[in-house]
Amino acid sequence: MNLKGQSLIGFDATTHNRESFSAVDPSTGKQLDPKFFAATEDDVARAAELAEKAFPGFAHTRSADRAQLLRNIASGIEGLKELLTHRACAETGLPEGRILAETGRTCNQLRMFADLVEEGSWVDARIDTGDPDRQPLPRPDVRSMLRPLGPVAVFGPSNFPLAFSVAGGDTACALGLGNPVIVVAHHAHPGTSELVGQVIVEAVSAANLPEGVFSLLFGRDHKVGVALVQAGPIKAVAFTGSYAGGEALRKLTNARTQPVPFFAEMSSINPVLILPGVLNSRSREIAAGLQGSLTLGVGQFCTNPGLVLIPESDAGANFVKHLAERISETAVAPMLTQEITTAFAKGVESRSAHEDTQVVVRQDHASGAALFETSANAFLANPVLSEELFGPATLVVTYKNADQLAEVLNSLGGQLTASVHEAGTDLDDFDDVVRSLETLAGRVIFNAFPTGVEVGHAMVHGGPYPATSDGQHSSVGTRSIYRFLRPVCYQGAPQSLLPLELQDHNPLGIARLIMGVRSRDAVGL
Amino acid sequence: MNLKGQSLIGFDATTHNRESFSAVDPSTGKQLDPKFFAATEDDVARAAELAEKAFPGFAHTRSADRAQLLRNIASGIEGLKELLTHRACAETGLPEGRILAETGRTCNQLRMFADLVEEGSWVDARIDTGDPDRQPLPRPDVRSMLRPLGPVAVFGPSNFPLAFSVAGGDTACALGLGNPVIVVAHHAHPGTSELVGQVIVEAVSAANLPEGVFSLLFGRDHKVGVALVQAGPIKAVAFTGSYAGGEALRKLTNARTQPVPFFAEMSSINPVLILPGVLNSRSREIAAGLQGSLTLGVGQFCTNPGLVLIPESDAGANFVKHLAERISETAVAPMLTQEITTAFAKGVESRSAHEDTQVVVRQDHASGAALFETSANAFLANPVLSEELFGPATLVVTYKNADQLAEVLNSLGGQLTASVHEAGTDLDDFDDVVRSLETLAGRVIFNAFPTGVEVGHAMVHGGPYPATSDGQHSSVGTRSIYRFLRPVCYQGAPQSLLPLELQDHNPLGIARLIMGVRSRDAVGL
Repeated sequence: MNLKGQSLIGFDATTHNRESFSAVDPSTGKQLDPKFFAATEDDVARAAELAEKAFPGFAHTRSADRAQLLRNIASGIEGLKELLTHRACAETGLPEGRILAETGRTCNQLRMFADLVEEGSWVDARIDTGDPDRQPLPRPDVRSMLRPLGPVAVFGPSNFPLAFSVAGGDTACALGLGNPVIVVAHHAHPGTSELVGQVIVEAVSAANLPEGVFSLLFGRDHKVGVALVQAGPIKAVAFTGSYAGGEALRKLTNARTQPVPFFAEMSSINPVLILPGVLNSRSREIAAGLQGSLTLGVGQFCTNPGLVLIPESDAGANFVKHLAERISETAVAPMLTQEITTAFAKGVESRSAHEDTQVVVRQDHASGAALFETSANAFLANPVLSEELFGPATLVVTYKNADQLAEVLNSLGGQLTASVHEAGTDLDDFDDVVRSLETLAGRVIFNAFPTGVEVGHAMVHGGPYPATSDGQHSSVGTRSIYRFLRPVCYQGAPQSLLPLELQDHNPLGIARLIMGVRSRDAVGL
Repeated sequence: MNLKGQSLIGFDATTHNRESFSAVDPSTGKQLDPKFFAATEDDVARAAELAEKAFPGFAHTRSADRAQLLRNIASGIEGLKELLTHRACAETGLPEGRILAETGRTCNQLRMFADLVEEGSWVDARIDTGDPDRQPLPRPDVRSMLRPLGPVAVFGPSNFPLAFSVAGGDTACALGLGNPVIVVAHHAHPGTSELVGQVIVEAVSAANLPEGVFSLLFGRDHKVGVALVQAGPIKAVAFTGSYAGGEALRKLTNARTQPVPFFAEMSSINPVLILPGVLNSRSREIAAGLQGSLTLGVGQFCTNPGLVLIPESDAGANFVKHLAERISETAVAPMLTQEITTAFAKGVESRSAHEDTQVVVRQDHASGAALFETSANAFLANPVLSEELFGPATLVVTYKNADQLAEVLNSLGGQLTASVHEAGTDLDDFDDVVRSLETLAGRVIFNAFPTGVEVGHAMVHGGPYPATSDGQHSSVGTRSIYRFLRPVCYQGAPQSLLPLELQDHNPLGIARLIMGVRSRDAVGL
């Protein structure tokens, strides 16, 4: 498979535009071939139009057929593993093991959604049967289920070239439910994106689906994304990236003539609470785990622990010493892009210069790890210290007691995760604090670390604003399907006009809610 | 129970403000006692603060206790039936039978949510058990469920003084799930609102719940609502009313420092498709049913059929004649408020004066029924004709064929309902049109009329923008719970720190998703 550097608009590759850019190998700073050509406004409009045209047919394909599409995409990706790994490593500077693991996760996600979609009960089918004899008025026959929303725009981040990218969780989820997808490729890994995009185009074509089911757009600046979220046919937007980028797109989607749902996963500092009891026995162990979590992938995870809350005590000071030792031994590695490296270095510099923070560790490299320390009072007095610093750095904040710890937590915006390391005895004093964490974050983690998001049915990767734009959703795991669905109700419909899922004899054998009772039976039997 | 005309801020009634207004009997135009005092900004802030304080405790009450609260509110309302009916009839001009039916629906809704909440499976509990031996990394124990969002602001409309008002569907739903509620009483029925508000306050107090669980705010203009949706503690807003009101609040909630979910049910003209085949045998029957639906409650329903699409044919012309006969016999009745009457009369006047529409019937009264007719081409050329005209009026649009019918439907914004009257033979030509209705509306109705929204598990009262601000939700029936919930995930949590719903032994006996399989069993058995 050769890279062409062209957007994939349905089944066509285009080079209408002369504006081009290249991927850069962050290990060498060198540009990689080929040139990628930015999509034009016409390209965007055509992709949106094709998606709109494809939607009614795609929405009415059988679940089993869409499941097969997802599985074919997974196989296609596995078939390209060597090429993909080579290109992704070159574009991201991430080690081969990480890329292989991420490829595995990407394919697992595709197959997880395939299984879910094929089983079929995800549609939440509900049947309230009619009763012509009810007084004072007959009861109508009312049936409803979740249906796809329409074309979904997907924006992936720089830090997951596969699992949150072209065939990542958002795409797998949206396609599986019957929504056409238009992906804006992240400019940091365009080659990886094109390879995966070609796999999807081939799978769509081989399944005889309309070409508008999938398009992939390239662009170096914001123009392509702005045009896409404003395109009339787009019915939902999924974004993973920075707070600034997410907020800009949120405002655009709200200002549309027809506003559409917008789901952004944006910014989180993922507080880690260390309660006093655990420092007696597990100080070194927690320090080691924390160092591993905060430097994993050069700190470039949305769940990176950027804030560590420790008791103001000798044991706390010892913990900082253990943590500092570990952090200073971190192997230095390149970050994903020059922009990220520069922003990180600038953030470390500004935190180092802050009069209320103490530099505990600062490795002598632009992407080196850093550890800062401050008091709860200083943290509360300086909101700038609660801003995300994307990279391998964390801020230790010391608290005097449960009340002060609660005050620090109350000062934070919504988070993706909140972790607590506790010994049973800690709950005498900290029970309220621990129980309050569920209002702060989408995922509360006990005696473990926030990086590593398990993909499954129970995972929640989300959280109150500004962790996400909409804290009612998850962007990982099967819970994420609710972003791209809407309930549709059919009243008094003839059997032939009902979707299979709502027909009396339950041809798909799915679980349904019949008069409020869950059942796989036919109606009326 | 005496009316005091004061906002209920938790357990206190206040009269800090001197600004006052009165309810008006629309049958006589006379003001009704007592005066109602508008809430001040301080009142709003205090209600929001009390709600915020009440939230953690209320969110952790047992589902069974919240179910009992809802049932006690229902009993309290029934205990006041006579007083309530008298006051609601006086404030709305609606007949006693309608108010009694609406009271029944209100209490049924409260009990429906009580049953749902008590049964417990609504929390969508999910458990993915851990596996320390998984390679290459152990699998963590991950559990999640839906939890309440926090204080909810509720805005009811003028046209449902009970079922969508103080103890209406939004309040019943939000309270049942563990969210404190602050209602802005509609100024058209403040006395009815206060009576029901007092019932809720008594039920909250009798249950020894914190006072912030419920507050009721009065106000004549927008000030109270604007202050409420901007209050920091508010975590979601539910609104039923006009497009202008909904849009204004949508913009305010989006512009908050912390944006919150906003659910508005706003504007819909509820197209009714009459396909050619049905006019042979059911022309008079459909005309009679349509007249009943469009003049029910003086046309003041969000599901009122404001657009009727008929074939351009002799049979179509005959149908209009039958419909006109029926409409001209409509008994005239007062509308809910002077503002609504004036807006309706103005709308009828402007539609009568429109050069492209023909007046078929126009009763000689400000709130009299009206029937207009135009062609598909004229309708398409004049977007003003697709605007909602709230009251007993409808516009017949004639179409030449399926393509033109599709064109008219494609020109419409999102709708709450779309109805189709079809004979089996119609589906040869109109199959695509009929199947496309699910993308236009939240509820597709076959061979029946849109008014009368059945409250149940399968109902969807919602639809794409601008029918609602968020077409992914319903504001009626048990599907409406998803507006006021968010998923929360607990990873590696000790049993004692898990909600009952997620503990191994399943103490509440609810249905849960364990490793993707639905079960009421304990985990590990």
